[in-house]
Amino acid sequence: MQHHKTIVIAGAGVFGTAIAERLAWNDTNTVILWTIEEDVVQDINKNHRNSKYFPTHFLNTTIRATNDKEIFRSADCILLVIPSKAIVPFTNEIQSMTKEGCMVINLAKGMSDDGAFITEKIPFARTASMKGPTFAIEVLNGLPSAFTFGGSKADYLEFKEEVLKGTGLYLDHTVDIRSVELMSVLKNMYAIAIGLVSGRFNSPNVDFLVYTKAVNEMRKFLTLFDCDPQTIFCYCGLGDLGLTSLNDLSRNRTMGLLMGKGFSIDNSGSSSTVVEGCRTIKLMGEMTREKGLKEEYPLVQALYRLMNEGESLNDYMMATFS
Amino acid sequence: MQHHKTIVIAGAGVFGTAIAERLAWNDTNTVILWTIEEDVVQDINKNHRNSKYFPTHFLNTTIRATNDKEIFRSADCILLVIPSKAIVPFTNEIQSMTKEGCMVINLAKGMSDDGAFITEKIPFARTASMKGPTFAIEVLNGLPSAFTFGGSKADYLEFKEEVLKGTGLYLDHTVDIRSVELMSVLKNMYAIAIGLVSGRFNSPNVDFLVYTKAVNEMRKFLTLFDCDPQTIFCYCGLGDLGLTSLNDLSRNRTMGLLMGKGFSIDNSGSSSTVVEGCRTIKLMGEMTREKGLKEEYPLVQALYRLMNEGESLNDYMMATFS
Repeated sequence: MQHHKTIVIAGAGVFGTAIAERLAWNDTNTVILWTIEEDVVQDINKNHRNSKYFPTHFLNTTIRATNDKEIFRSADCILLVIPSKAIVPFTNEIQSMTKEGCMVINLAKGMSDDGAFITEKIPFARTASMKGPTFAIEVLNGLPSAFTFGGSKADYLEFKEEVLKGTGLYLDHTVDIRSVELMSVLKNMYAIAIGLVSGRFNSPNVDFLVYTKAVNEMRKFLTLFDCDPQTIFCYCGLGDLGLTSLNDLSRNRTMGLLMGKGFSIDNSGSSSTVVEGCRTIKLMGEMTREKGLKEEYPLVQALYRLMNEGESLNDYMMATFS
Repeated sequence: MQHHKTIVIAGAGVFGTAIAERLAWNDTNTVILWTIEEDVVQDINKNHRNSKYFPTHFLNTTIRATNDKEIFRSADCILLVIPSKAIVPFTNEIQSMTKEGCMVINLAKGMSDDGAFITEKIPFARTASMKGPTFAIEVLNGLPSAFTFGGSKADYLEFKEEVLKGTGLYLDHTVDIRSVELMSVLKNMYAIAIGLVSGRFNSPNVDFLVYTKAVNEMRKFLTLFDCDPQTIFCYCGLGDLGLTSLNDLSRNRTMGLLMGKGFSIDNSGSSSTVVEGCRTIKLMGEMTREKGLKEEYPLVQALYRLMNEGESLNDYMMATFS
């Protein structure tokens, strides 16, 4: 027997909306989108659409939206799909009003500005992380899709067997939450790296040469961050790396493609197209240098030299294959 | 200083011809194609073309061809690129005429009919295996391409630093030759598996869901065959699986695509389009059943039921995601 659950999704952008649609496939879930965007709230409640993010789609009519934070009092489970920078202050704000034992799952990808893991700063006992090889539009469109659930075994089983039952969303599992967060940050760098060679060569041989190298660098990062190296085999590991690196829906890959063709990209952060991977390249490039590990991370170092030290594209290409 | 080497490539089909072209980029290699096809020999020697396999391409003029087996007397290194079934009798035949210390490298993919590994039946002390994520046409076209060299460390270094120097072909390495052979056989099954879902869903989310599962089944096979599990991280492992599963130049993926769309395929082996993966599905499907390991290999079992027991496509799809 399934227990009825109230799922409040914080963030009604593309990913929050897509996941809401799928959770609504299981009619023992009450699915509520919370967002500060009043126009989005009205659109969902009145028109069953989120035209701002999905102008062509109709949503399940059972999904409700609100901008009232009081809604978090009713949540059995909160999914965090707001920008990663907002998560720590946001969770601190709602913590006192939530039910005891409320499960909080972070779906946002990214680290704190100080390089710390967001999930380690969330003030909830039942904190988890969920990421995988999943474009939002395909989640919305009903495609079978997979995530890694980083959290306790009990939370994993409850979420999988109760909340996700019948949704066509699938999970694998690790107890190492940090490793799930780390993979989701690293893959963006390597998507740029593979985009760069795709933009130059347009070749499967080249793509999978660099993809294989990228998987092996990601493994080294898992060890460097004291994470479980087995997470590379999870959906959030080599699966999400492949999705993000090899498909043109990916913004980071697209940025690499453009750079590989010689377009000049503004990475200053002032534009709305700023790509997560750029920040990670700077962070990881400098960190591996400071630790004297340049030789261990040739792809990251080549990206760092290209993007921060003015190295030429030809030198980048040669370094990638050396 | 580089030592001059004579490389004789047995087989002047697509892959033999492509690799000959690249080895000729290093002018300390003397590159000779051996084939029984007299018309191909004439075409290469007179026209510097292999029109039968590459009607649109011109070859490096230093490449020579012959159908005379005496040529193997001059070989420092023999590359085997003939059909896998022919390799054991062929190597037995030429063994007595070769120089002492001649290195023999198997590039053909496939197992013996009795399920044994070809490299374990080749009568040469210096036997190696070389496979990777490399479409032949892209090797011919000069794209950077990568292989795993399965063999001794000394042979790996010699081949990499002398024969492949300047060719734009790159190697990683394992001493576990068998693992390289095994990966090249298994990936064909999983290319069919991913082709099947691509033919139905045309979705990156679905592709990388199944790709991640496939990598994990391949890891279990490495253990089952007493191979080094680390080979999954080599070019011949997750790299070649990705190339073969996710690109439409792959015959096995294409067969899956067609089946996923409901086309009926003749796998009887009498047609020239017989696909390697079909034989492997039967072999591995039965072997894992006999060992009582059905639950451990859900993708292989689903393929086996679909292709050998008449299970429906819908049941196949459900089994893939369960």
